[in-house]
Amino acid sequence: MKIKTALISVYDKTGIVEFARELQELDIEIISTGGTYNVLVQNGIKSKRVEEITGFPEILNGRVKTLHPKILAGILALRGNPRHEEQLKSFDITPIDLVVVNLYPFSDVIKRGNFTIEEVIEQIDVGGVSLLRAGAKNYKYVAVVVNPQRYEQVIKELKSSGGELSEKTRIMLAVEAFKHTSNYDATIANFFASQLTEDVLPEIFHLSLGKVKNLRYGENPHQRSALYGDFFNYFEHLHGKELSYNNILDISSATELVIEFDKPACAIVKHTNPCGVGVDDKSVLEAFKKAFATDTVSPFGGIIAFNRPIDLKTAMAIDEIFTEVIIAPEFPPDVLNFLMRKKNRRLIRYKDINLKKVGLDFKRVIGGVLVQEFDSIDLEPMNLRVVTRRKPTVDEMEALIFAWKVVKHVKSNAIVYAKKDRTLGIGAGQMSRVDASKVAIMKAREMGHDLRGSVVASDAFFPFPDGLIEAIKAGATAVIQPGGSIKDDEIIKTADEYNIAMVFTGIRHFKH
Amino acid sequence: MKIKTALISVYDKTGIVEFARELQELDIEIISTGGTYNVLVQNGIKSKRVEEITGFPEILNGRVKTLHPKILAGILALRGNPRHEEQLKSFDITPIDLVVVNLYPFSDVIKRGNFTIEEVIEQIDVGGVSLLRAGAKNYKYVAVVVNPQRYEQVIKELKSSGGELSEKTRIMLAVEAFKHTSNYDATIANFFASQLTEDVLPEIFHLSLGKVKNLRYGENPHQRSALYGDFFNYFEHLHGKELSYNNILDISSATELVIEFDKPACAIVKHTNPCGVGVDDKSVLEAFKKAFATDTVSPFGGIIAFNRPIDLKTAMAIDEIFTEVIIAPEFPPDVLNFLMRKKNRRLIRYKDINLKKVGLDFKRVIGGVLVQEFDSIDLEPMNLRVVTRRKPTVDEMEALIFAWKVVKHVKSNAIVYAKKDRTLGIGAGQMSRVDASKVAIMKAREMGHDLRGSVVASDAFFPFPDGLIEAIKAGATAVIQPGGSIKDDEIIKTADEYNIAMVFTGIRHFKH
Repeated sequence: MKIKTALISVYDKTGIVEFARELQELDIEIISTGGTYNVLVQNGIKSKRVEEITGFPEILNGRVKTLHPKILAGILALRGNPRHEEQLKSFDITPIDLVVVNLYPFSDVIKRGNFTIEEVIEQIDVGGVSLLRAGAKNYKYVAVVVNPQRYEQVIKELKSSGGELSEKTRIMLAVEAFKHTSNYDATIANFFASQLTEDVLPEIFHLSLGKVKNLRYGENPHQRSALYGDFFNYFEHLHGKELSYNNILDISSATELVIEFDKPACAIVKHTNPCGVGVDDKSVLEAFKKAFATDTVSPFGGIIAFNRPIDLKTAMAIDEIFTEVIIAPEFPPDVLNFLMRKKNRRLIRYKDINLKKVGLDFKRVIGGVLVQEFDSIDLEPMNLRVVTRRKPTVDEMEALIFAWKVVKHVKSNAIVYAKKDRTLGIGAGQMSRVDASKVAIMKAREMGHDLRGSVVASDAFFPFPDGLIEAIKAGATAVIQPGGSIKDDEIIKTADEYNIAMVFTGIRHFKH
Repeated sequence: MKIKTALISVYDKTGIVEFARELQELDIEIISTGGTYNVLVQNGIKSKRVEEITGFPEILNGRVKTLHPKILAGILALRGNPRHEEQLKSFDITPIDLVVVNLYPFSDVIKRGNFTIEEVIEQIDVGGVSLLRAGAKNYKYVAVVVNPQRYEQVIKELKSSGGELSEKTRIMLAVEAFKHTSNYDATIANFFASQLTEDVLPEIFHLSLGKVKNLRYGENPHQRSALYGDFFNYFEHLHGKELSYNNILDISSATELVIEFDKPACAIVKHTNPCGVGVDDKSVLEAFKKAFATDTVSPFGGIIAFNRPIDLKTAMAIDEIFTEVIIAPEFPPDVLNFLMRKKNRRLIRYKDINLKKVGLDFKRVIGGVLVQEFDSIDLEPMNLRVVTRRKPTVDEMEALIFAWKVVKHVKSNAIVYAKKDRTLGIGAGQMSRVDASKVAIMKAREMGHDLRGSVVASDAFFPFPDGLIEAIKAGATAVIQPGGSIKDDEIIKTADEYNIAMVFTGIRHFKH
């Protein structure tokens, strides 16, 4: 079916004049509303006003202009249906084949801030949504364009097909319209819900993210997968093979970890857990060496992340081991040239060193989603509470804070043995705290690390003294943990008996 | 402001007669549309037809009935605004103060299945959405009721306040309306999008989930959190303390694991990983005992899940250990009575034993979301490939399949040692495969399990023979793994040298 009549009512006037001019050249009659009409006519495009069609003026300061049966029936009529055709005729209603509408910018006004409730309310588009939904419902006969970026595509198809749009295009445009109205109303619902309550958790958890691209596969080769959203606003893929699902997951984990540190730092990650973390006062190379020394086996095929630009010496040291991904805030040209010699190795620059956690964290469960604030609380050294007779030495305290930053990023139950500039043993993902400690010790010993004089961090409190005793026997002299067990007294007593220094953070860092 | 006029247009007529009768008794004038009008009048309630107001008939088989400025201006007018008041007067428009509308059941029709596209399209409500949105926009003066469950509350407030609804109630009702229209349009968008493409990964990843409730906190006490969606369509909370974020996460993990098994099975889970899994030909109690025997320390404060109703003996055995949550498809009354004696212990009935994985799995990363198909592939015993000279015995094969089902649900890298009816050692969440194996062995030995004659499952291929040799030395006689390493030949040769039976699945089960 040829498109004969278009209704245009747009708030965002981007490209509308050019679009309407092309429609006119295709002999499509244009009906438009107030502001749109003025712009079109000023630009020499012929148009009828909606009021000419409805015989009813725009009233209530524009709150009611298009909501009239002569417009909506023109959009909603089933073409070729005898009864509908007859009713159109008897009420003198022109069929409308193309609906070009975009809405009052509700979310822009909210984002801008500094508004009154009355202003916000006026941004709730009623007429525009009705037109869009009517057109999208009747996609069998009507095309509906909500997105100005579609104008070019629509014109191209109209021209190439003698004034028609395919059903596939019409469905696609209808889907776009319903997505838009859905998002629009979720934003409105959440805004007013937030007026009702101080709650940071919205009444509707709403996500609507565009596909970045299909990935080769998901966590496993039999799972199809795609990446959505703005990942590449934060990361630039400079070189190497396409990123896999598991790469992206690990890049996210490794970056969240390495940016915890102020000093030059390196974190090596596999399966979302750190194999090792090192910091140094000056040298990125030293930070890498310390991270790598923690565990020289697991980093094979892993991800190495830095919080400073890499230098050539460091690049040469990394080059010795097989690494899937290298992440840094900057790759100087000589480093980039050197590292690009390996064709497949992925080089990722992260763009925003803060990666501030705005929004909410979420996780799928059966039938639903768990939503929470990010675990982005900063450790304030002044909030640390020494609970033992012996206070940590300056070096111990530095090591405790270092270990605490690492343990936050290890899957629970998590135990980390460390010195002030390096991890020595990381016990990840265990079902009991004492096992996490044993795993960390086992791994440290295998790598020949002496745990005497080390410190230990625990992501949650020790429920019993056993985990602590395990750590003390391994050689740890200071402990950092949230505290809060009903057995705290007993655990503090145990620490005192062994002359251990213990610090309570009051903060837990479970991560799953 | 007193409510004087109500517009009623409902598809779902539940409670509408009683509600309208109460409105009438409050001297509220009622305007209604076709089907609603008939029901009201048949039940002796006075009402005007919409057509009497608009002077325009219902046309296009009901596609256009309420979409008229006389109705919409009646809803949208700002009360007390001189210009609006004047326009109402000059066009003889009655203000409408209460909008009672619910929509054509689009999602019900889709869920029912067996429909034509034309039938689905007719279920897209245009007029009803416009009325709801107009009323919700003008919540300062108008109340809008989309949910029949609100009728009672509305009547109660009207009666107690002399015919008024508070602004708080009106905002709350408006939020409910916008939520409803948002979800409605998301359902429509996704339905038509799925008609367009074979790609299971949609162009837009859309989630719009209503809040079930705020949780006490998130993964950690400093993170505020809420649950969204339909979790309680799948799980019934029969007894015990409120569910926590971590409870819900573990309930989800434990249930996904335990429903893998056909025989009576028990899985004990902590921090999303199984501490132990047991199956038995007949007895739930035996299944529990075997699961518990794997690791008698970690289950403290854990989650125990069954795939069969629990009997009293099993309940008494569980009662000996401190358990946060017990999950089963059924709790017979005597068992429920017994288990309810502990006030805090949560008892969860899961409702749909299939818990079929429809939809998509997803995970947050920095700036975006990774979306993938669920890892729901079934292991087809006929697709297993024996790659060693020695074939597994019947018992070994049963054990291999059992271990494979468990390892799928252990965080990667994962290694599971098992007999055909129980796990012996579970190595979870390690950064290297060989460490996962060592952890599994360490844990089995601590619990006094003899690994001689056991089998071992690995969630991904062994990259080197070292992990396999580790397993063989521990006593494993058969191995199940995906295969696919470039060193497969060497690894098969190693297995043959030790007379081990090895099976390749061709499927990997990474889980993070």
